[in-house]
Amino acid sequence: MKLFRFGPAGAEKPGLVVDGVGLVSVAAFGEDYGEAFFGSNGLARLARFYAEHPDLCPRVGADARIAPAIARPSKIVAVGLNYRDHALETGGTVPTEPVLFMKATTAICGPYDDLQLPRGSLKTDWEVELGVVIGKTARYVAREQAMDYVAGFVLLNDYSEREFQKERGGQFVKGKSADTFAPIGPFLVTANAIDASDVRLWLKVNGELCQDSRTSSLIFSVPELIAYISGFMTLLPGDLISTGTPAGVGLGRKPPRFLKPNDVVEYGIDGLGEARQTVSASD
Amino acid sequence: MKLFRFGPAGAEKPGLVVDGVGLVSVAAFGEDYGEAFFGSNGLARLARFYAEHPDLCPRVGADARIAPAIARPSKIVAVGLNYRDHALETGGTVPTEPVLFMKATTAICGPYDDLQLPRGSLKTDWEVELGVVIGKTARYVAREQAMDYVAGFVLLNDYSEREFQKERGGQFVKGKSADTFAPIGPFLVTANAIDASDVRLWLKVNGELCQDSRTSSLIFSVPELIAYISGFMTLLPGDLISTGTPAGVGLGRKPPRFLKPNDVVEYGIDGLGEARQTVSASD
Repeated sequence: MKLFRFGPAGAEKPGLVVDGVGLVSVAAFGEDYGEAFFGSNGLARLARFYAEHPDLCPRVGADARIAPAIARPSKIVAVGLNYRDHALETGGTVPTEPVLFMKATTAICGPYDDLQLPRGSLKTDWEVELGVVIGKTARYVAREQAMDYVAGFVLLNDYSEREFQKERGGQFVKGKSADTFAPIGPFLVTANAIDASDVRLWLKVNGELCQDSRTSSLIFSVPELIAYISGFMTLLPGDLISTGTPAGVGLGRKPPRFLKPNDVVEYGIDGLGEARQTVSASD
Repeated sequence: MKLFRFGPAGAEKPGLVVDGVGLVSVAAFGEDYGEAFFGSNGLARLARFYAEHPDLCPRVGADARIAPAIARPSKIVAVGLNYRDHALETGGTVPTEPVLFMKATTAICGPYDDLQLPRGSLKTDWEVELGVVIGKTARYVAREQAMDYVAGFVLLNDYSEREFQKERGGQFVKGKSADTFAPIGPFLVTANAIDASDVRLWLKVNGELCQDSRTSSLIFSVPELIAYISGFMTLLPGDLISTGTPAGVGLGRKPPRFLKPNDVVEYGIDGLGEARQTVSASD
């Protein structure tokens, strides 16, 4: 099953991508794709609802804004330096256990919304990533059971302001949390509908291929990450794990290259769709 | 006005601490103390409701659990090393701009709930702190206007597992986010009812005074923090800023001292009440 959301910011509605039909609204189902939905067997209930009531699910107009694929989670836990080539390009070392940081959920936006540079930004950078959406409360989960806690996967971009992240007194969160720094989607693919352990992910800036790797190159796999993170904090249904980015970010180039107004960032993961942001100046 | 919440975890109800009356339920008001409440002039509406309908607000029984003073915020932004003496005791240097990190909101608990040690913890430590609850959406706020964005203040304890925080591959969040690591309350005092810029904060472990300072010793004041943080991310109504802890944490002692089961942690801030946790073993 493929879930998406549509409509203006703050008034998003749930939808489904249906093979042979296209984008349909499931607003009549009456629940957004958040903690309560995922935590109450919402995926199975939604599938049944659509099977029984396709007549209540009209097509979504082509002019609708595609919104973040999930409602605001309680947290975004992000993993740093989780591809060997990226760890090395940033001048870091390959971590022996996952590097975790958080990204403010206020950073979330839709997959085609503009990326707005934060005020004072000179070093805004891109990071295509595989996102994992948690399906049920996860606390001290064993690696062997970890995939049972996955609702699905999403495409995302962990935009990062490198000066804010690295040159302003420590802790990555400062450079990870500006508004529009977390486009999510275009859609969520349920865990039963994709094997995300070896899919291609790529990113282009103004048409030039900058990142091109496969999730099989993750240092710490999705089950390892869920087991690890859930040992430090409780993951709630709908929470998002951002699994890290491969080599090819702007910071890793010689000389470094960062985003400027009117740049176009396009990226995708096989099976999880593609997204595109145009960079706008700070307000 | 003093707001508190009561009732079992997951079913908390809003209440008021009323001079000359005591703890009363304002469940009849119909709103919890979260983003929607703070973001819609809830404090003024609540004051009017209580003035007009005291008959709808019964006393809260003495056996009720006192819950976290606010509903789950979109984020907890915490400030590290924001008292000079604490920065030095941890072996760090005095920061030239605020050190920010996040604490998972799943860590929130009531002010008298047990502190549960996370599995594998050998270095769980205490940190009494002044908490600031945001009253309206804050984005690029000027320091001079910052206090207009404060709904009120709370007492909190930023419990920290020092090994997880400092010895497990970087980024504080790993040591800050275990369940029960963020007791909030006993109550929120609205910004118009307290001047929190120079109040005493203190903490005892098993009766021994360990922390004893004043908020006037903050390196970065509350208005400075709001201005600074809102330049990196949007703060939403109900969001919580944890402003940092003074000297006297377990990590700063020679030899270091950390919490073990049955230890009792008591702490308070003048005007913001007192809280108390008993330490329980990991499950």
